[in-house]
Amino acid sequence: MNSSLYECLFVSISLGSAVKMRSIFIGRFQPVHKGHIHTIKQILDKDEDLIIVIGSSQYSHTPDNPFTGGERVMFLRRALMDEGIPFDRVDVIPISDIHIHPLWVAHLKSFAPHFDKAYSHNPLVSRLLKDAGIVVDETNLLDRETYSAKHIRDLIRWNDSEWESLVPEGVAELIKKHDLDKRVQEVGETTTKR
Amino acid sequence: MNSSLYECLFVSISLGSAVKMRSIFIGRFQPVHKGHIHTIKQILDKDEDLIIVIGSSQYSHTPDNPFTGGERVMFLRRALMDEGIPFDRVDVIPISDIHIHPLWVAHLKSFAPHFDKAYSHNPLVSRLLKDAGIVVDETNLLDRETYSAKHIRDLIRWNDSEWESLVPEGVAELIKKHDLDKRVQEVGETTTKR
Amino acid sequence: MNSSLYECLFVSISLGSAVKMRSIFIGRFQPVHKGHIHTIKQILDKDEDLIIVIGSSQYSHTPDNPFTGGERVMFLRRALMDEGIPFDRVDVIPISDIHIHPLWVAHLKSFAPHFDKAYSHNPLVSRLLKDAGIVVDETNLLDRETYSAKHIRDLIRWNDSEWESLVPEGVAELIKKHDLDKRVQEVGETTTKR
Amino acid sequence: MNSSLYECLFVSISLGSAVKMRSIFIGRFQPVHKGHIHTIKQILDKDEDLIIVIGSSQYSHTPDNPFTGGERVMFLRRALMDEGIPFDRVDVIPISDIHIHPLWVAHLKSFAPHFDKAYSHNPLVSRLLKDAGIVVDETNLLDRETYSAKHIRDLIRWNDSEWESLVPEGVAELIKKHDLDKRVQEVGETTTKR
Amino acid sequence: MNSSLYECLFVSISLGSAVKMRSIFIGRFQPVHKGHIHTIKQILDKDEDLIIVIGSSQYSHTPDNPFTGGERVMFLRRALMDEGIPFDRVDVIPISDIHIHPLWVAHLKSFAPHFDKAYSHNPLVSRLLKDAGIVVDETNLLDRETYSAKHIRDLIRWNDSEWESLVPEGVAELIKKHDLDKRVQEVGETTTKR
Amino acid sequence: MNSSLYECLFVSISLGSAVKMRSIFIGRFQPVHKGHIHTIKQILDKDEDLIIVIGSSQYSHTPDNPFTGGERVMFLRRALMDEGIPFDRVDVIPISDIHIHPLWVAHLKSFAPHFDKAYSHNPLVSRLLKDAGIVVDETNLLDRETYSAKHIRDLIRWNDSEWESLVPEGVAELIKKHDLDKRVQEVGETTTKR
Repeated sequence: MNSSLYECLFVSISLGSAVKMRSIFIGRFQPVHKGHIHTIKQILDKDEDLIIVIGSSQYSHTPDNPFTGGERVMFLRRALMDEGIPFDRVDVIPISDIHIHPLWVAHLKSFAPHFDKAYSHNPLVSRLLKDAGIVVDETNLLDRETYSAKHIRDLIRWNDSEWESLVPEGVAELIKKHDLDKRVQEVGETTTKR
Repeated sequence: MNSSLYECLFVSISLGSAVKMRSIFIGRFQPVHKGHIHTIKQILDKDEDLIIVIGSSQYSHTPDNPFTGGERVMFLRRALMDEGIPFDRVDVIPISDIHIHPLWVAHLKSFAPHFDKAYSHNPLVSRLLKDAGIVVDETNLLDRETYSAKHIRDLIRWNDSEWESLVPEGVAELIKKHDLDKRVQEVGETTTKR
Repeated sequence: MNSSLYECLFVSISLGSAVKMRSIFIGRFQPVHKGHIHTIKQILDKDEDLIIVIGSSQYSHTPDNPFTGGERVMFLRRALMDEGIPFDRVDVIPISDIHIHPLWVAHLKSFAPHFDKAYSHNPLVSRLLKDAGIVVDETNLLDRETYSAKHIRDLIRWNDSEWESLVPEGVAELIKKHDLDKRVQEVGETTTKR
Repeated sequence: MNSSLYECLFVSISLGSAVKMRSIFIGRFQPVHKGHIHTIKQILDKDEDLIIVIGSSQYSHTPDNPFTGGERVMFLRRALMDEGIPFDRVDVIPISDIHIHPLWVAHLKSFAPHFDKAYSHNPLVSRLLKDAGIVVDETNLLDRETYSAKHIRDLIRWNDSEWESLVPEGVAELIKKHDLDKRVQEVGETTTKR
Repeated sequence: MNSSLYECLFVSISLGSAVKMRSIFIGRFQPVHKGHIHTIKQILDKDEDLIIVIGSSQYSHTPDNPFTGGERVMFLRRALMDEGIPFDRVDVIPISDIHIHPLWVAHLKSFAPHFDKAYSHNPLVSRLLKDAGIVVDETNLLDRETYSAKHIRDLIRWNDSEWESLVPEGVAELIKKHDLDKRVQEVGETTTKR
Repeated sequence: MNSSLYECLFVSISLGSAVKMRSIFIGRFQPVHKGHIHTIKQILDKDEDLIIVIGSSQYSHTPDNPFTGGERVMFLRRALMDEGIPFDRVDVIPISDIHIHPLWVAHLKSFAPHFDKAYSHNPLVSRLLKDAGIVVDETNLLDRETYSAKHIRDLIRWNDSEWESLVPEGVAELIKKHDLDKRVQEVGETTTKR
């Protein structure tokens, strides 16, 4: 894939950057897994520049959002670097969730650089984007049951090391180095501060 | 019913508007259904002017709150107009939910014109209003299982056209004209942006 | 004016309501004054239906926002009634201020029924609306120095009864009846709770 | 226990207050029960001064948070007074929940006087405190199944007077005197304002 | 004064606590000064128990609110202790400012135990309390120009040690011990994070 | 400078990335100017990787914050690209302002990847960071009166094209291409929506 990526890049430079599309891809990345990377590569292979938006970035230490926004930025950068993806084609933007759907697209547009197109496999996000007049595109998915952040958090909680094979190697390393797997286990059962 | 309504109106005009009571009726109206209209008519028939408050107005595109505050204002106006209810007797006020119960009555009072009495069939709302010293009155209900917004949203989700018979004709028309039934179906299963 | 209004109404009914435009007019109405009524009449005279949006509705008891959202709804209804403006052509919607400009138009659209056009004499509002692709129209202004809510609040504060001539008669009556002029005076000098 | 408490106090006064530790104990106290008092006594017996923090203080009238922050302050003061615990050793601080875990410890530190150590039996709170570099200590628990605020709220809801034996006598008295048991029953089944 | 205080206390105990009034006194205490103590003593001397509410408690590090809520709790406790005021007659409750005046009294009531009367020298607070039906009482003021928190912050900023004579001795000690005078100086000129 | 930068980079790669420091630099970048670039280059020249944090990112269309968070990300990326600064050494993170100073450092840490050191010329930010135990470093400043975002906004407002010489060429281009200079002029005088 990397070679085709570089070819694309080469072509786009020869043709001038004016014709480049910039797309946006939205996720919570709790944590980044190989399915995310698969999607990112497909978009870059289509010669579109990419803004990766990390949603619900203000949350951490909950069963569904164990990692902070900053940790998720770290995961993404590490995974992109390990894949040899050129950083000048990719922005990583953490944004807070505002919980008010009719404002969400305006919120997204205000935090992200201008974009031409969006990617999402989530029907609510697609609906909100389309209602706001934004073109929504799709990519192929790796096996969705397996490459699912929820499934990976469950595996970590159950102490099943299979999770390490589902995320990029560098991400697994970061999680273990910072004891974040322990955090996933500790916050797994309790969501209320008492 | 309309004739008794007009008689009431006539009487109240003859006696002078000074003796008129103004009541408040609170709902989420997701969507407006015939049970709501039944309640509204009963209150107006008692010769009370009415403030209809649309709660949780900031939300839309969720399974429980699919329609925006503005869409719900539109539903109510259309239904009132079709019923021939005079607009000079009815205010429609959308308010945001603030999620902090001890502040809720103060919030309600600050967004609504002065009122003398409130109507509610919900025990929590009644309790909050009574705790704040407000008189709470009741009306007869149409069959509550059937004329329930939750039930209507479910019917829309299941593609069962029975829902159209449970809401005022004009409301059904608006929902279909703006493809809002499709929105109900699309947001039915997903509540998290990813 | 009223007669031309009724003529317009007649025409629009004969032609069918499908061709009617619905416009939005945004203000804080602290308080409603004759300049506002002048604008409202011009818009209705153009045979456009109207949504009047009361901005910053959550605030009261401050020097710039002495009146609650609900009091301002009351002012507007009274003024419209006294002018004989038919309520089926006008919505009055109080909305909270959200203080985040890039989200403001989305917020407005979510609380108001669908509209085709907006009126504003404020350059920031015009800019925000135009940036969101909304057509912004204008009306003639009464003498802006005199018919200004800020000027009226100052007159009330200085105990100068000239203010009563600048607002619709019914509004002056409501303000005095509910001692709201005293509130304007009391909150005039202090903005911090201590 | 009280006698040992006074002995501790005596010693600490002789040695000077400079060597006194100040600990923090966090709960929601919905309502205060004998398990809480058991923990408070153990901490004071170790000759540590205590800040009792009432979490989620902005909430009331919900199934999980029926009592207001102020009512919970009242419960705690009454229970401490009945136990003869000297108020100059104990602060009671109600704080709002902010729902954003990575900010929670900073929020806690900003509302509470300086503290040296924290007590918690909740794994999430312990994790958040430890992640912020705060020492977390533990106390023995009374039978956790029985002395649980959730269990007590359920008993009140089911009209089972056994709940009165699980809370300090003065707290039971306050709850019944202010009809708060009725509120627990009324808000038990409904969490949405409609 | 202390002797009369103890006499009051004696009388109130003989008569039973049922007849005791509980009053509320609201301030920002940035910082606590001798004027505050003067007011607190007058209220206690009238044999009323007291809830001291620290407003705007979420703020610190600004020119007007340099000290955190927790630091202000510390100031008050130290000053009360040094004056020999019995803690079982006084609650100290920090509350956040909510910036929405029509909700403020409901917010106050929800965080504080039940109270019968309020004290304030601020016209806005008096107005809000009276509008909500609460009795507002007054006390004599020490020279208001001198015993003013704003004046004291200015003196600290100008490095004029006169400020130490305007606050209780223990409070001056705490401020200097924790270098809080330096913080007042550093945040004095800048209010925006850049 | 660029050549020394590359030498630094070379050395750091030979020594291994483990020894690399990561620093954080906080600004509002309204807009990015040559003073910012001067600071960024100094930090990178010290062989520290850099996280650039764009503060108050939720705001736009105000006199002090005319540009959206996303536009400022665009400015920074363009300026960094034009300077030949390698993107794998620099993160650009827009964060919302939370207006509560005691929580601000926790908020910053939660949105940014781990960092070792911070840069700031603002005394309040330095104080907040130091209070939270973070090392604060400094860089040399270009003439601060001239290379000031406030001064640049004023020049744009006054239609004085000198502003173009104070910002990187690519940034001036973007501002003019998207008519953002016109926005600065339009929002310059009005800050309230009416």
